[in-house]
Amino acid sequence: MSPKNAFYAQSGGVTSVINASACGVIETCRENADKIGNVYAGQNGIIGALTEELIDTSIESDADIAALKNTPSGAFGSCRFKLKSVEENRREYERLIEVFKAHDIGFFFYNGGGDSADTCFKVSQLSETMGFPVQAIHIPKTVDNDLPITDNCPGFGSVAKYVAVSALEASFDVKSMAKTSTKVFILEVMGRHAGWIAAAGGLIEDYGIPVLLLLPEVDFDHDNFIAAVQSKVDRFGYCTVVVSEGAHNSDGSFLAEQGSRDAFGHAQLGGVAPVVANMVKQALGYKFHWAVADYLQRSARHIASACDLEQAYALGQAGVEMALAGNNAIMPTIDRISNNPYRWEIGSANLAEVANVEKTMPLEFISEDGFGITDLCREYLYPLIQGEAYPDYDERGMPRYVVLKNELVQKKLTQFEL
Amino acid sequence: MSPKNAFYAQSGGVTSVINASACGVIETCRENADKIGNVYAGQNGIIGALTEELIDTSIESDADIAALKNTPSGAFGSCRFKLKSVEENRREYERLIEVFKAHDIGFFFYNGGGDSADTCFKVSQLSETMGFPVQAIHIPKTVDNDLPITDNCPGFGSVAKYVAVSALEASFDVKSMAKTSTKVFILEVMGRHAGWIAAAGGLIEDYGIPVLLLLPEVDFDHDNFIAAVQSKVDRFGYCTVVVSEGAHNSDGSFLAEQGSRDAFGHAQLGGVAPVVANMVKQALGYKFHWAVADYLQRSARHIASACDLEQAYALGQAGVEMALAGNNAIMPTIDRISNNPYRWEIGSANLAEVANVEKTMPLEFISEDGFGITDLCREYLYPLIQGEAYPDYDERGMPRYVVLKNELVQKKLTQFEL
Repeated sequence: MSPKNAFYAQSGGVTSVINASACGVIETCRENADKIGNVYAGQNGIIGALTEELIDTSIESDADIAALKNTPSGAFGSCRFKLKSVEENRREYERLIEVFKAHDIGFFFYNGGGDSADTCFKVSQLSETMGFPVQAIHIPKTVDNDLPITDNCPGFGSVAKYVAVSALEASFDVKSMAKTSTKVFILEVMGRHAGWIAAAGGLIEDYGIPVLLLLPEVDFDHDNFIAAVQSKVDRFGYCTVVVSEGAHNSDGSFLAEQGSRDAFGHAQLGGVAPVVANMVKQALGYKFHWAVADYLQRSARHIASACDLEQAYALGQAGVEMALAGNNAIMPTIDRISNNPYRWEIGSANLAEVANVEKTMPLEFISEDGFGITDLCREYLYPLIQGEAYPDYDERGMPRYVVLKNELVQKKLTQFEL
Repeated sequence: MSPKNAFYAQSGGVTSVINASACGVIETCRENADKIGNVYAGQNGIIGALTEELIDTSIESDADIAALKNTPSGAFGSCRFKLKSVEENRREYERLIEVFKAHDIGFFFYNGGGDSADTCFKVSQLSETMGFPVQAIHIPKTVDNDLPITDNCPGFGSVAKYVAVSALEASFDVKSMAKTSTKVFILEVMGRHAGWIAAAGGLIEDYGIPVLLLLPEVDFDHDNFIAAVQSKVDRFGYCTVVVSEGAHNSDGSFLAEQGSRDAFGHAQLGGVAPVVANMVKQALGYKFHWAVADYLQRSARHIASACDLEQAYALGQAGVEMALAGNNAIMPTIDRISNNPYRWEIGSANLAEVANVEKTMPLEFISEDGFGITDLCREYLYPLIQGEAYPDYDERGMPRYVVLKNELVQKKLTQFEL
């Protein structure tokens, strides 16, 4: 009997190292060709499974699969699509089973964050609920670092490194200019509900930089913030502010929704950095600059953390090994053994305990005034940004990122309307 | 007779490699200690000369001076301050002479862009106009790449590399997400009058990325732009837009000044990216993301171009050598000999021909539709982003950027009010 094939898909917002997890999955499957057949990747995530758009990874060379380690973003396409429960949308689950059967798929590797863990958990229940045998393994990934149980989430360490390095560099710039020009620099980073990414900006305090964080875990207080900025500028001559996109007032409203309107009266979309910049300008009159890192931060493979890259790969590899050991409804995790030196090992979590649970920053990681991080947080963060995993560059000075062939397997079924 | 001392100052917006020019100046002066005495650096640029706040670089170790090569921003502080003409403000020139005399300064090295070249030129005329012998040499620096005569300006190559790499990475991200999420990504970069920095974003077309540039050299046409975005999204499924902060309408008004107002009716400050994003949203309804690179781009020493770094150092070195050869009112330049392989040598320009001249992109560098660059422009740009000049990192995963002692020389004069 030939071994079952595997399905692999990327889900949700992509990262600079999610392809390293894909590489870990595919390489480990290739090493176990007697137990796992082809790896079919979903074109645009789980949607590819529903529409039977399956990428045949077997035609990709070993070199190109290895190059995934150095390539940011989702090589097979991702999606924002959450399966409803079996009760609510049985049709989608029946289709999944139809596709899995048609292509002899027995392993389901889903690479994503909290929502995706929920999807993966639902798929893992197909054996029980619909009598179809499949082993569903969730490979964690999210720059938001908000999955429970695991020490951290692949993708986060690299964003944290990007934010810490960029905030340090920009702060050096502001310090140079502060005498006659910019005194306050505001950097907006991702994190709608959790402040992990902004917290990485707090590391630059260790390099003598005056920095204030605006975290989603702390209700924003205008007067306290303005007083803190003034105090930093009085003492240092300048100040850097790192603000989470999810920073909010005590009534829960986002700072970014302050009601800015364009010339036509339309609500101005997004951007908490300019809102904070205007507050500073109006209250204190300081000259300011602001930046919004947006996708630059999560795609910045050029400054990826070596630790993050290694863990992303290891979790892909571990996911396959767990499947081979007969597991279902499980997620490999990073378990931290020690901070200094940083030591970790692979553990595991039951998907039922992961799905839809969001881990925000613990209170003991946030400084008393709410604008900074504690030593405990520093000890947690530093290991995750250790090491520089540079991609190769071509002779023209650009990174060598691989673009796969991404050829689809011949369809066997009728069309499916999403 | 002991040799004359030198004054060195950084001016205008700093860059990721201006300190490499400082390193070139100081190391070359140290190698010629029989002909040049101490190097005094102006604290916060020319202001330090006026206020007699002179940093004694002689107390810095050779290792720390060498580390300047790897440290972004202006190590001695910069300023935005333009000397008026001697006729308009003789008092400032008299003060400069007073300070130069008090500290036995015979060499003036000014490291900046177009405005600074003007200041440097005025100082170079002190011998003639006010009978004080000083040799003034301008070391070019500006991310805007808008100085005439020289092939390019130190600081630009590194920003170009940052923009090209970042736009490539973010485009990979958008491509991954485009099926169900973001279809248009807008990256705002610097360049108020010249589109050189945005042009670097055009390089990613060579990597199969659909990209549109909005350059200050081309009047913005709303309908043409929207049609171009739609055409790219129809064909590729997504589109990246790189917009210069100076993009403007045919009446000269900046796109960024579209009259956005906050909740209180105050004009919203800065940000052309959200303006363009809103245009796309309103005309085409596509989901979008936008980023504003701001200071991140010009301080990004972590992804500096090796070519840029080498030229920044070489120009600092050449400035000192030109001074030793008896020159005044001169600027060392980069002269391009060939594109492929890229070969260059040091040339020189008379300051009278540099001051206040702004070099925008030549028409033959801009594609016919105005949204891209030509092969000629590619051949110009690629050499400038060649090579990766990574800084060292410490064991915690952060770059080792040097902070100098920056001790001031004992003042000898009375206070001067700016």
